[in-house]
This record gives sequence, C-alpha cells and structure tokens, in this order.
Amino acid sequence: MIKITLPDGSIREYQQGSTALDVAKSISEGLARKVLAANINGEVWDATRPIDTDANLKLLTWDDTDGKSTFWHSSAHLLAEAVEATFPGVKFWVGPAIEKGFYYDMDLGDQKITEENLAQLEKKMNELAKQNNAYVRKAIPKTEAVQYFTEKGDEYKLDLLQNLNDGEITFYTQGAFTDLCRGPHIPTTAPIKAIKLMSVAGAYWKGDEKNKQLTRIYGITFPAQKELDEYLAMLEEAKKRDHRKLGKELGIYTMDDNVGPGLILWMPNGTIIIEELEKLAKETEHAAGYKRVVTPHIAKESMYLTSGHLPYYADSMFPPMEMDGERYYLKAMNCPHHHKIFDADHKSYKDLPYRIAEYGTCYRYEQSGELFGLMRVRCLHMNDAHIYCSKEQFAQEFKAVNDLYLKYFKIFGIEKYVMRLSLHDPEKLGQKYVNEPALWQETEELVRNVLIETGVPFVEVKGEGAFYGPKIDVQIWSAIGREFTLATNQVDFAQSRSFKLSFTNQHNESEIPLIIHRAPLGTHERFIGFLLEHYAGRFPLWLAPLQVKILPISDKFMDYANTVKQKLFDAGVRVEIDDRNEKIGKKIRDTEIAKVPLMLVVGEKDVNENKVSVRRHGKGDLGMQDISSFLEAILEEIKERKGE
Amino acid sequence: MIKITLPDGSIREYQQGSTALDVAKSISEGLARKVLAANINGEVWDATRPIDTDANLKLLTWDDTDGKSTFWHSSAHLLAEAVEATFPGVKFWVGPAIEKGFYYDMDLGDQKITEENLAQLEKKMNELAKQNNAYVRKAIPKTEAVQYFTEKGDEYKLDLLQNLNDGEITFYTQGAFTDLCRGPHIPTTAPIKAIKLMSVAGAYWKGDEKNKQLTRIYGITFPAQKELDEYLAMLEEAKKRDHRKLGKELGIYTMDDNVGPGLILWMPNGTIIIEELEKLAKETEHAAGYKRVVTPHIAKESMYLTSGHLPYYADSMFPPMEMDGERYYLKAMNCPHHHKIFDADHKSYKDLPYRIAEYGTCYRYEQSGELFGLMRVRCLHMNDAHIYCSKEQFAQEFKAVNDLYLKYFKIFGIEKYVMRLSLHDPEKLGQKYVNEPALWQETEELVRNVLIETGVPFVEVKGEGAFYGPKIDVQIWSAIGREFTLATNQVDFAQSRSFKLSFTNQHNESEIPLIIHRAPLGTHERFIGFLLEHYAGRFPLWLAPLQVKILPISDKFMDYANTVKQKLFDAGVRVEIDDRNEKIGKKIRDTEIAKVPLMLVVGEKDVNENKVSVRRHGKGDLGMQDISSFLEAILEEIKERKGE
Repeated sequence: MIKITLPDGSIREYQQGSTALDVAKSISEGLARKVLAANINGEVWDATRPIDTDANLKLLTWDDTDGKSTFWHSSAHLLAEAVEATFPGVKFWVGPAIEKGFYYDMDLGDQKITEENLAQLEKKMNELAKQNNAYVRKAIPKTEAVQYFTEKGDEYKLDLLQNLNDGEITFYTQGAFTDLCRGPHIPTTAPIKAIKLMSVAGAYWKGDEKNKQLTRIYGITFPAQKELDEYLAMLEEAKKRDHRKLGKELGIYTMDDNVGPGLILWMPNGTIIIEELEKLAKETEHAAGYKRVVTPHIAKESMYLTSGHLPYYADSMFPPMEMDGERYYLKAMNCPHHHKIFDADHKSYKDLPYRIAEYGTCYRYEQSGELFGLMRVRCLHMNDAHIYCSKEQFAQEFKAVNDLYLKYFKIFGIEKYVMRLSLHDPEKLGQKYVNEPALWQETEELVRNVLIETGVPFVEVKGEGAFYGPKIDVQIWSAIGREFTLATNQVDFAQSRSFKLSFTNQHNESEIPLIIHRAPLGTHERFIGFLLEHYAGRFPLWLAPLQVKILPISDKFMDYANTVKQKLFDAGVRVEIDDRNEKIGKKIRDTEIAKVPLMLVVGEKDVNENKVSVRRHGKGDLGMQDISSFLEAILEEIKERKGE
Repeated sequence: MIKITLPDGSIREYQQGSTALDVAKSISEGLARKVLAANINGEVWDATRPIDTDANLKLLTWDDTDGKSTFWHSSAHLLAEAVEATFPGVKFWVGPAIEKGFYYDMDLGDQKITEENLAQLEKKMNELAKQNNAYVRKAIPKTEAVQYFTEKGDEYKLDLLQNLNDGEITFYTQGAFTDLCRGPHIPTTAPIKAIKLMSVAGAYWKGDEKNKQLTRIYGITFPAQKELDEYLAMLEEAKKRDHRKLGKELGIYTMDDNVGPGLILWMPNGTIIIEELEKLAKETEHAAGYKRVVTPHIAKESMYLTSGHLPYYADSMFPPMEMDGERYYLKAMNCPHHHKIFDADHKSYKDLPYRIAEYGTCYRYEQSGELFGLMRVRCLHMNDAHIYCSKEQFAQEFKAVNDLYLKYFKIFGIEKYVMRLSLHDPEKLGQKYVNEPALWQETEELVRNVLIETGVPFVEVKGEGAFYGPKIDVQIWSAIGREFTLATNQVDFAQSRSFKLSFTNQHNESEIPLIIHRAPLGTHERFIGFLLEHYAGRFPLWLAPLQVKILPISDKFMDYANTVKQKLFDAGVRVEIDDRNEKIGKKIRDTEIAKVPLMLVVGEKDVNENKVSVRRHGKGDLGMQDISSFLEAILEEIKERKGE
C-alpha cells in the first residue's frame, strides 16, 4: 500500500500502482470525470499513470492552469492525428500548449494547408475526439525510438531525440497517432468537446529564419461548446476594443519610423491620461508616506555590474554608448539609481521605512517582431517605487503595498485579479537565484502570510522568482474577460548587499535593509493599453481627455457657449466647443463617436434660462440643468474618480 | 573730410584720419574720458585708431560689453608688463578677456608664481597703470614680426604668427611691454584704477594635456575701487550661496561616480521643487492654450539627419547606440519629436496655433572638465514647448511667450533681465545659417517689433542666431547681482521645411507653419541652481521642500503636535515634527539653519487654547494663532506663490 496525501492534508491508502484517476474515483465519480491530470509531488503527471510510492497528490481539472494546458497539449496531438489522416506523409516538429490554446508546427512537404482547410480539420478532430481514445504513455529505449522514427523517415523527431537520454523517452499514442512526447496528457480524447482552429501561419524551424519554414496551425479547445462560444465572442469584442485601433481614433498615441519601433509618442489626449494617472499615483503615494525622486536615464556599466543586471540581463538592455572611455547604458530599471539616492546620506532606523517613488522611464530591448502596440514597447514609463525597511517593518510595508493595489483595482473597476507568487527553486540556488537559502525561505514566508492575511486570491509558482527575491505578478482581467499581466511586486534581499546599503538600527549596529520593488499601476504603456480595452475607449469622466463638449444649436449661441466654456475651463474642466456649421443631430452623433462623456446642447431656451441641456454618453438626454449645479456635480465626480 | 554716422542717426563731418576719441571730444570732454573703444561699421576698434572713410560709429564705454572686454584685455597686457618686470625671461602665450575679467597664460621657465606673488604683481600693475602709458598700435610686416620674436627667443608668439598673414599683424606697446596682438585696446592705462588678481593655476598649452603646462593668472579690473569692492563682496556672498554647497546641505541633489558625471540624482527635496516648478509651468501653459505631450528620449539617426542636428551638432550629442542595424541617439533637444506629433495627423488653420509642451529630458555631451554642479550638466530637464503658427499669428504668439517670461520674472522676484536678440550674419548664409535671406529679414523684424512693443530691455547681437532662425537668450540677474543665461526663445522657419510640415490654410492651400521654440523656465538644473543662489536656499513658502516644522516643547505635547501635523498634511502642506529629545532652543536653531519657512512651537498654553505659536524664518516670533486661521493664511500664500 502507498500513502497519498491530499491538498487538505488528509492521507489515504491505496494499492501500489494506483493512478490519480483511481484516487479521484474513490472520492466521487463526478470528480473523476473532471480530472485532466494530477500534480504528484510537484510534477504534473497523467491522471492514468501508476503511482508506486507515497506521494502528495492534487487532482487537476479545467479550473487549474496545469489542467488547462494538459488539455490543450492533448488537443495538439488530436490536431496532429487529424492532419496525418488528411495529409499523409506530414512530419511533425513540436506542438505545445500556449497561453490560450495550442499550436503544432509541421512539415507538409509539397502539400499546403490554407485557412479553408481548417474547418475540414476541425471536423476531423471532432470525429476523432468522439472516439474516446485513450492517451497511452509508453517508456521507450532510445535505440528503439531512433529506429521507429528512422523507419518513418522523420528527421524532426530524430533531431529532438538527439538531446534526450535513455530512460527519459516516452511515446504517447491516441487512436492512430503516435508521438514522441514527454507528456502529460489527459486520460482520453472525450473531454475535448469544442474545437476551433484559429489560424495557419509560417514558422521557421527552431525560430531561426535561416531554417526551413514550417506550417503552424493555432487552435483552441474547450470542454463545452458554450465556453468556446463565449471565448470567440470575447475575441470579437476585443477586436472592437483593440487598443491600437482606439489609440489612433482617440488621438492617444502614435509611432514614427524615424523615431523607431516600440517608442511611443504620446499625443495630447494620451498625455492627459498619463497625467491623470500620475496625479492619482502621486496623491496616493504622498498619503502613504512616499517621497519622490527624479533620476537620469543612463548610468555607467559599473552600476549594472554592481546590481548584477550585467551581464545577466544584457540581452534585454539597449546597447551601450561609449563615452570618455566608459560604457553608458540606458536604464532598464530604476532600482540602482534609487539605491544611490538611499545611499547618498547616512540612514538610521528613524529614516526607515524609506519609500522613494518615481515615474521612471526605462528602456528595454525587445525583438522588433515582439513589439505590439502599447503592450510590448521599448520605452516604458513605470509607476515605480522602492521601499527600504527593516525585517520587522516588512510585513506591514508589504501589506500597505497590497492595499494600494486593491485601492487601484476599485478605482478602475477591476473585479477579477490574481496575485501570482513566484518563488525560487532550491535546486537552482547559486545559478538562477541568489544563493541565500535561509533568506529565500524567510521572505517567501513573509510574503505568503501577507497574501493569506489580506485574503487576496493568489497562486504560487515555484522557480519563477526574480534572481534577487520572490516576486508577485499581478494578473488582472479586463471588462471583457481578457487577462493582462499588470505589474510586479518584488522582495529584494540581494541588492542591498550588492550596493552595500545599510542603516544604523536601534542598537546602534549597522543593519542591511530589505527592499520592496513595486509598481501597482505597471507602466503607462501597458496600463493605458489595458484601459483602452477595459473601457472600450469610453473613459470615466476623470480620465477622459475631453470631458465636456458644448454643442451650440447655431452660431447665434456661440457667445453663450463661450461663456459656459470659460466657466468650466476656469474650474479645470477639459472642455471644447463644436463650432462647426453643422446640424445639431450631426454634432451629437460625432461627439458620441468621439466618446466624450458629456455634451451640453446650447440653444434659445438655455440662453434664456441661463441653463445647459445635458447629454451623457451612452445615456442620452439628462434634461436642462443650472450651469453651477452641473459644474458642481461633475467636479465632485472628477474629484472622487467615479467609475461612471 | 569723412562722414561719421552716430547711433542716433546724426551725421557729422571730420578730418580724414580722425579717431573715435576725436569724435568723443567734439561732443564733450567728459564723454571722451569715458571712452574705452569704439564700434566702427560693426567692428570694435581702438578709440585712438585713425578713421579714413565714412563710417557708422558707436562709442564704447564701461557700460558696453565690448567696452568692458577691451578694458579687461588691456588689463591682461598690463599684467604681462608687471610679470615681465618682476620675472624676467617669461614668455607669453595668450591673454584674453573673459566673462568676468581676464587671464594671461605664460611660460615662466624655472620660475614660479604662487598665490603669495599675486599681491606683489597687483602693486606693480597699479604703479604701471598710474604712469598713464598709451596703448600704441603698430602694423608690422610678417618678416619683421618673426624676426622680433626670433631674436627674443619666444616660440609661443612665433607659433601664433604661423597662422597670420602679412597685412593683418599688429603689435601693441604700452610702457616697456610689446605684444603681438590684434587689439583693440583702451587709449591709456590710466582708467585701470582697481585691480585684483584672483588666482593662479596650471593650464596646458593649447588646452592639450599632452603639451607643456603653462601658468595662468586670472584677474579682474575696474575703473573705480568701489566697483571692485562690490564685486568682491558679491563673490563672497555668492560663495555662501554656492548652489553646490546649498544643494548638498538642503538635500536637493546628489551625484554618483557609478551613475556618471553631469548626471543629477534629484533627492526628495529637490524633487519637490521640480514638481512645484512643473505645476507652475503646467498651470500657466494650460491657461495659455498649450497641450501637453510625452516623447521618448531616443530616436534614429535619420531623424537628426532630417533636422540637420547631425552632423552639424554631433559633438554636443551623446554617442550613438547601434541596434537592429540602426544608430539611435539620445535626444539633445525635443523639437524633432514634437514635429512628429504635429505631423501625426492632418492640420488645418483651425488647429493653429498648435502649442505643445513637454518637460522633456535631453542629453548633451559636455567635456567633463566643463561640468559644474547644476549649471553645466549632461542631462537636462527642459521647460520646453513648440508653437506652430501662421505668419499672421506669429507676432501675437511671440508676444504671449514674452508675457510668460515677464510673469515668471515677477513670481521669482527677478528684477533685472535683458533679452539678447541674436541675429544672423548675412555673410554666413548657407554656412552657419540657413540660406533664406528674405525669411531671416522678415522674422528678425517681427521679433524686434515684439520686443520694442512690449518695452522689454534687449540688445541685438549679429551673427549669434541659431542655424534655423533668430534667437533670444534671456539673461537674468540673481538677488546678489550675478548674471545667468536662463533660457532661449527661438524662431524657426527652417525645420518646418526639413520635416515637410504643413497645414491647410483658409484658402485650402498647403502652407508651411512658423515654429517658435521656447523654454521660459530653462532647465530644472540651471533654474534650480539659480534659485538656490537667488534665495540663498531660503525658498518662498510655495517652493520650500519643507514648509512647516512643528516643534513640541516636550514629549508631553507629541499627541497635540501630531493632531496639528495631520491637519496640515491633509490640506497638502509639507510638514514634519521635530520629535527629538532636545531643548526647544536647539530645535528652533536647527530649524532656522535648515531654512524652513515656518515653525510651530507647541507647548502647554498652545494645547490648552488649541493654538500654535508661529515663528517665521528670519522674522522670529509671530505670536499665537488659531490653527485654522494659520492654515488658511499659508494656503493662500502658497496658492498665490507669494515671494515671502
């Protein structure tokens, strides 16, 4: 018998060689039907793979990230089976699960798959899925595997085999299709109930443009048609809300060939949003006891050697400038500059926590093919700050940072979010992670406790921490349910040492501070990109580049319109007059299209009664109002940063 | 007879060969005594040099920049005479006038001049000056000049002679001293009445550290002892107000070897001043109809080739970064990026004047030896904006910019200022200046008219315009009478053409806009450096990093102090408590030294009466006040940006 420990801590005994599926069935048949894979002692396994020793076991379903990706990886195999049935002689390279769905790269020889073939392949996949074929795992000696693919004449799988050793090679077979694959897979093809092949594209073998171009098919699958329909509807809506489209239409940003790719030129409307966000951040941070600093965008190579960003992070930095016999780099992060400010004068425990904030502009090298609108750029304006504190202060400071996030989520109507706590991997200490095992344990525990105490939803991921400490990635979902990585929040117990930072504690001893890196609003680029989609360009009043448009019914009312405009302008409202010689109906329609939150229609009656006729975007006519009470109401709405 | 035209347009006739001094004497003896040199047809001449043709003539006195520099250059010759008399065998290199005074570089062989010798040399110079020796100009054929200095064994003057041609070589002699010199000089040594040799230093021959090190003596002279005394007192005061000293003491900024020279790290106190200045600029510019933009700090080489900054301005730019087969440069100016924003969508006459502003950060290469505190840096935060307008709009726009300057001068208590209007030189069209003679004429006239109409003090300087249009440099004087170049204000009729910018005018034709480059607050670096000296670190309330310090008489009153603090903090006042266990006298003294504008002493009586005892920096005790009326008063003072 073996002992299986479940996530709730309960321990059950099973026959040696039992599978996760057996465990699930012993709990309930309903649960077993949902099981896609299992986490066994930290590794994801097939739910049908025999367990021979005592183990910690977590059943994985569609609700788990690892469950989903196993489902999608198995769907890639199903696609391959369908392709092989339809295009005999095809050779396969790799077919991984991705963030949303999966792809498979293949060499079709002289044959060609076009968008038109995709429906046909979907149909075939549906047929095959219904056969309820099991995904069967088989360990294979290397010689046998090489022989199999040599006979098949498959140079791609033979290439993969080169880097694999005896004892770690497995084949997976479902129906008529066998693949070299390390797995894991779902038990059978049956749960794959809804299938959509999204697109077909070219992809160089191994991503190298000197190699042959393979065919890549992207797809996504779901355990129910309803989920697929919702996903496709979301994509449709996301297309309408595409931040690049809205960004252009609303005059938010532009780019220029002579400036360079990934370098955003913020137009006047985008700059208004930037300034409103900065105002929010500054107010919030001021209230939370932060001080502000301003630092240059460059520093000598020696600074990044000290910080360890060089050579480790060199590929993500811009190339150096050679000057006065030194190499200068554009900063890819603000921390080293901030450490220098911390270190500019002596600090005692009375100065701590020392919190310094800067909307710092950083430059990061991204491959030009990776650049994407505001989402992937080379110049980033970061809502950055660093908190230097003692170990005793850490939990409270970290909690305060968490509270900042929650405050912002509320302001922006972000209802769904998850904190992704990335931890170190003890096996990679000294390589990927600073070799301070005790400090890793300690700080990870501190962070975890804060997350548990504040009741924030979070998941833990081993082996994804930053090189100097554990990290929290904040995932948020837009109004249409698309996921974004907003910001990171990092604990750092290494850079204080590298930069020899210290403070004098209460016992008059020199002590090394802990550092929290945080950026709750992320970068302007990514956050404004998110907001464009989230609000579909219909910004709440406080963020709207143009808040009020005055629409005179005819030229006769221009004087009055100007009086109203001046009143609003003087109160700090962003206001314009539509002075075109157009019918009022057209003026209203154009203002609606421009997504201006408020319109003031101004005609005979308004002039006579010294009022304005208010229309709200998406809500229509709100009737006539006194100018002063209208103004008072919107100033309140702006000040409170109300959602609508 | 020759015709002499005076600056007032009057024309007088003189004997051919008359001198400027003759002209002065013909007007008044008193005037003649003041004459130091003369501007003859745009060139500065000795007042004693015969004039042989009709000429425009302006007499130059101590009140003219060129008069002063002639005076100082003659003083350098006087210094040389004194040195030669005291240290026989000395050889001289060059001895120019500088911004304040003059220097002379010399080779003393085995001899040495130390600070101690300076008084002795001053004494000798005074003796020589009293001899009232004339500065005598003599044209010399090159062979004769070479012979003279060969006999003297003076390799330095022989080196200078190499680059001179026959017909342009002159000797100047006063008393026992003769020098190779193009002049001009003052008539005699007599006006040099007050002499101060400031320092002695090493200076490499021709500024090249591979060459021999010469001895450089710096000095300054005045026509009256009183002026020298005032100048030295001003220097003494400037030393106390040294922005580098105050900048450190007040926690305004720091620099760091690992970041690099000339790269300012703005500490929290400096950042507060930056943010107050930006707030002022943004408010003012918003009211004046500017929109704001944000642009990256880099661009491709092609952009600067288009703008003409490359190759022309390459030496002042940072070296390029090579990336993706392109060369990227850190921007040394914001204009090209702004032009791209202007050009991002189509503009019509309705969009003009299009005014876009940005506190843009630029990078300029300065030799490390030229770097000086905040005054000469490599990273500059510029109060920049560009106005795109039609020719018809230009005068009004330019006037509005002028008004901005005047508004700022008032806010900062800058009482003395001069606009230095730099014009083109028609002879250098196509080389130093864009070859558009008509446009130069036209825009220079437009600018001049605005300056005349607004009654701003200004001087005109030929041949110092920017390469793309006339330029105004704004000179301001600090409270202690030191002169600073604050900002420039430029007209540009060339870049619109280079960038192919256009708008559709009322007649539905494509028209090229004029551009005004303006930066009334200059750069943060230079302006805050200026303000540190100007205010001696005692910033007015609205700018003060810490506005109010609460000084509890003992720990007993900490709760009350905290209540008061919270009230002020919530109202946006920058406030701290001095919670040290110190006597109140010491707390007051320390707060005075830290130059905090307001102190609230809090003791038994204040708590009982719910009041605060107010002290003002430099003014002492202002008595007890209600918290709310105190708060109201200071909020008003802050809002109005009062001088004190």
